[in-house]
Amino acid sequence: MESDFITWLRGQVPPHPQLRLGPGDDAALLRLADRADAVVTVDLLTEGVDFDLGEVSAARVGRKALAVSLSDLAAMAARPVAMVAAVALPRRGGRQLGADLFSGFLPLAERYGVAIAGGDTNSWDGPLVISVTAIGETTAAGPLLRSGARPGDRIVVTGSFGGSILGRHLDFEPRVNEALLLAERYRLHAGIDCSDGLSLDLSRIAAESGCGAVMETERVPISAAARELSSRVSDGRSPLDHALSDGEDFELILAVPPEEAERLLRDQPLAPLSLSAIGQFIAEPGLWQSGPDGQRRPLAPQGYEHKFD
Amino acid sequence: MESDFITWLRGQVPPHPQLRLGPGDDAALLRLADRADAVVTVDLLTEGVDFDLGEVSAARVGRKALAVSLSDLAAMAARPVAMVAAVALPRRGGRQLGADLFSGFLPLAERYGVAIAGGDTNSWDGPLVISVTAIGETTAAGPLLRSGARPGDRIVVTGSFGGSILGRHLDFEPRVNEALLLAERYRLHAGIDCSDGLSLDLSRIAAESGCGAVMETERVPISAAARELSSRVSDGRSPLDHALSDGEDFELILAVPPEEAERLLRDQPLAPLSLSAIGQFIAEPGLWQSGPDGQRRPLAPQGYEHKFD
Repeated sequence: MESDFITWLRGQVPPHPQLRLGPGDDAALLRLADRADAVVTVDLLTEGVDFDLGEVSAARVGRKALAVSLSDLAAMAARPVAMVAAVALPRRGGRQLGADLFSGFLPLAERYGVAIAGGDTNSWDGPLVISVTAIGETTAAGPLLRSGARPGDRIVVTGSFGGSILGRHLDFEPRVNEALLLAERYRLHAGIDCSDGLSLDLSRIAAESGCGAVMETERVPISAAARELSSRVSDGRSPLDHALSDGEDFELILAVPPEEAERLLRDQPLAPLSLSAIGQFIAEPGLWQSGPDGQRRPLAPQGYEHKFD
Repeated sequence: MESDFITWLRGQVPPHPQLRLGPGDDAALLRLADRADAVVTVDLLTEGVDFDLGEVSAARVGRKALAVSLSDLAAMAARPVAMVAAVALPRRGGRQLGADLFSGFLPLAERYGVAIAGGDTNSWDGPLVISVTAIGETTAAGPLLRSGARPGDRIVVTGSFGGSILGRHLDFEPRVNEALLLAERYRLHAGIDCSDGLSLDLSRIAAESGCGAVMETERVPISAAARELSSRVSDGRSPLDHALSDGEDFELILAVPPEEAERLLRDQPLAPLSLSAIGQFIAEPGLWQSGPDGQRRPLAPQGYEHKFD
């Protein structure tokens, strides 16, 4: 029953210095930092598309639902403050599912200082649906937008790409602390998190910034999972293909002025997590690749998009 | 396709003075008023439970999804600022559904000064699910909580109750402006919006405030819809039964100090919308009714709760 579940939940939610009123009223009350803007993002996951409860625990689903939203805050270089969750639970076993989702939120929320501020608990005859709204605040460095890249900026990425379906899409670490550190110490022009595919998300930065991007494909950091997937599945897709289009890597893709990029790459302030330069933004619109021969060819942005008509 | 839809959507979203960055980036940026707390609430509606697309248009569903969240902000006496929406669209006809939902948000958002700040558009093989997160800000009057009622406070309600299933549950007006006006001009101790049922929601204020409540049932304003429903369906439920338990009236239930309540009822500042005193809070816990004979009997809180096990 909804009310029993909410009573239980209220006993579980840890206090948070910015949470003035948590679950149990009609809305939550949050105190943001002075002069900060509120940064708001929502993501919804559905059973059968984003996860399969036959294969993964509800706790991992809960963790993913929060992590995806935190990754969006990271892409804005925002400091996380709170989350609210709305769920549609199957009537059968919904209570346990709800508790398991919560147990997935909890460690991640604690790790990133996220107040679990409230939610909406529903039941129905359909499969599990979970929506997490994350609320963050801007820092003194200001928000990082998609639209600030300029021709000449280097394309800098964290970590490696491809093959997330082998596990990373569930258990990735949102690059919250990394984004905050980089934004504080370096001049960044633009950023996005790689949720739908490296080439697709890079093309989005370029398009929003009114410029183009050339990827030096031999510099793209390819994950071990991308190599494994490529060798396991004989569909002709190379490890690079996976890196460019699989998505759900949840790494940062940044536009960094050249001299700043040089400093960043030399410093490697996120070690052992790598920072790699994989190309640059150019005035000419579109997405391009340049191989070791230096020749530039068009590159079709590929990645995941929800399809409907 | 998701990206086409988002491009279309970005062309539709009106500007808003507090929206520093709207749809199209990884998150939205909102500027709240100085010294205001952020007020955050989320509600999720599912096809088959909250609406039936065979009977109502998607525009009315969109309107309801936003109105329900605005009603929660009203219950906190908060000023609405923005909304974000997450949807799971059926793959077939999802594009039109998404556009129709948006067309339902739009007039209500404009009416209450709500920025349409962003969202997440998903598709799947299931029925329509929509989740709206509303973000508001507290005013100088401060937030209205459920927990502030004191013994002796009058129970004051807006409007009338019962029979919302005949249409009101879709087309109700969230009491945003009413709550802001009342909180600005009168000293209110506690408030809630009637979403699940008058007796159930009243019992929640009492429980959160550590006191009880006595309803003078003959004073409960009964809606024409409650009378109609009672006469139409011969299940033995009186118009009063409907008023006490149907829910989705989305009227305000307030705890008001006695002298303030007197002034409020004399002023009737919301006319033609009525303000009625229907009983009082008492020290003894629990929910009670007192009839014209003055005798007090226990009253079982009744209303809608999501059921799952």
